[in-house]
Amino acid sequence: MADSPRILEHLLKAPPASGRPINYPFLIPNLKGLEAALSVCEALSSSSTTTAKPVESPPTPPQTPPDSPSLDPGRGSVSPAPFPKPTELSIFLAATDSFSLRNTNCTVAESLDRLGPVVQLATSHHIPIRAYISVVLGCPYDGPNVSPITVAEISNKLLDMGCAEISLGDTTGMGTAPRTQALFRVLREAGVPVQRLAGHFHDTYGQALVNCAVALDAGVRVLDSSVAGLGGCPYAKGATGNVATEEIVYFLQSMGLESGVDLETTAEVGDWISRVLGRENGSRVGKALLARKRE
Amino acid sequence: MADSPRILEHLLKAPPASGRPINYPFLIPNLKGLEAALSVCEALSSSSTTTAKPVESPPTPPQTPPDSPSLDPGRGSVSPAPFPKPTELSIFLAATDSFSLRNTNCTVAESLDRLGPVVQLATSHHIPIRAYISVVLGCPYDGPNVSPITVAEISNKLLDMGCAEISLGDTTGMGTAPRTQALFRVLREAGVPVQRLAGHFHDTYGQALVNCAVALDAGVRVLDSSVAGLGGCPYAKGATGNVATEEIVYFLQSMGLESGVDLETTAEVGDWISRVLGRENGSRVGKALLARKRE
Repeated sequence: MADSPRILEHLLKAPPASGRPINYPFLIPNLKGLEAALSVCEALSSSSTTTAKPVESPPTPPQTPPDSPSLDPGRGSVSPAPFPKPTELSIFLAATDSFSLRNTNCTVAESLDRLGPVVQLATSHHIPIRAYISVVLGCPYDGPNVSPITVAEISNKLLDMGCAEISLGDTTGMGTAPRTQALFRVLREAGVPVQRLAGHFHDTYGQALVNCAVALDAGVRVLDSSVAGLGGCPYAKGATGNVATEEIVYFLQSMGLESGVDLETTAEVGDWISRVLGRENGSRVGKALLARKRE
Repeated sequence: MADSPRILEHLLKAPPASGRPINYPFLIPNLKGLEAALSVCEALSSSSTTTAKPVESPPTPPQTPPDSPSLDPGRGSVSPAPFPKPTELSIFLAATDSFSLRNTNCTVAESLDRLGPVVQLATSHHIPIRAYISVVLGCPYDGPNVSPITVAEISNKLLDMGCAEISLGDTTGMGTAPRTQALFRVLREAGVPVQRLAGHFHDTYGQALVNCAVALDAGVRVLDSSVAGLGGCPYAKGATGNVATEEIVYFLQSMGLESGVDLETTAEVGDWISRVLGRENGSRVGKALLARKRE
């Protein structure tokens, strides 16, 4: 996640090489943020058509079928450039007024009002919006018993607004198996399609993987995670990061579920980033795999 | 766990004050080990009857009902002292010959043969025996696919020998939810009563709590754990300790299950012992609870 237009510009201009498409969920705090992101896209679009010079072209023209737009604006193609845009933008709100007021200085209802035009503008540009709802299973101010009915109401409003996906954030890691199960039951009963939901569990109390298992059992197939369990929450003291990607991938593999993620490479990345940041690798799987490899 | 007769003697002579009885599962490697432990018990028994002197007696005689033996040999009571003995002794073997040969220098069958007289002698002294079976869900030499049928056969033999309880050790932490589930299914089908089973999961791959949940679901009500997740296995490189007691207690509480363990005190103990040992506290629950407390 990053809300800086400069990062967005960099990634749109020079996307890292990858065999699979990578989603960069750019966090859009408000309408101004979205307009800034759209300006970056438009500027890139016009620059890639106006600044294209033959000397910057590759020796041989790219073998592009006539009906396919160039997907490589960095090469300075002279064919009409596409409007480069992020594959997804993200908005965030909270499940409790207490958290919402301290985090975004407005109530949940005000948040929904403010985010309406953001979703509308983004969808008019065919950019899917992912909405994060924070503290769905525990709030640092209101405690663990956040109303699942409120979460369901917010979810339905976000889907009605046009959001493509909702990530349910257990920001504090207070989620327990029974309450996670209850949350998904209430969401189902409220008519929220599970295909539109993602689970976002922090591992502060070591329950994230159990909660992921409960979410999977409820039909959720999108789970947020971070390599080496990086992250945290400035508003929830002592809160650790998301469940480690390594743990999730290992767990999915054990269940015979395909994630498309290479476990060993992820472990290497987690080890590298932990060393760069000078912090303990938060993934047990990562540490165990690498210890075994280095035996 | 400790197999030293000196520790046994110390704990029998001066058991730490506790409102509840504490189990010290003394590890008995072989018949010689059991005989050493029994000598300690006998020596304590005779010393507490022969060295009792009036000057060592408390000012007022203890209010002991006539039919109840004194349970406080340290006070030098002149009433016939009980034969002090550990509440439980432990033996260990493995689920694979590869691990057994490297860990105890004999095959699994030889292990069972050697342990028979140990169990017999202990039960003749009315001391219950707990048997640990190592590597039931993964062996460092044979890999993850340890035969659950072999584990069931060993379990039945141990129960037939007279063992009171069997602790199923996922020594390497390779256990996954589906294989843990399959193991308990095979054990049930083989006629092993789940009431005699304990789960002993290491958290090397972060799966211990998930596996505990699977064990609970299968009817297991005894789970081994260690404060701050202390421990490891010298024969399984990179292996971390048992699942942290704090995580288990927190998880059980979340399910509405009574453990009789005070979570906050356990977290304090885990924090203290981690500092004493100069190692990172391996319990997320412990760290999170203490961070919140010190806010």
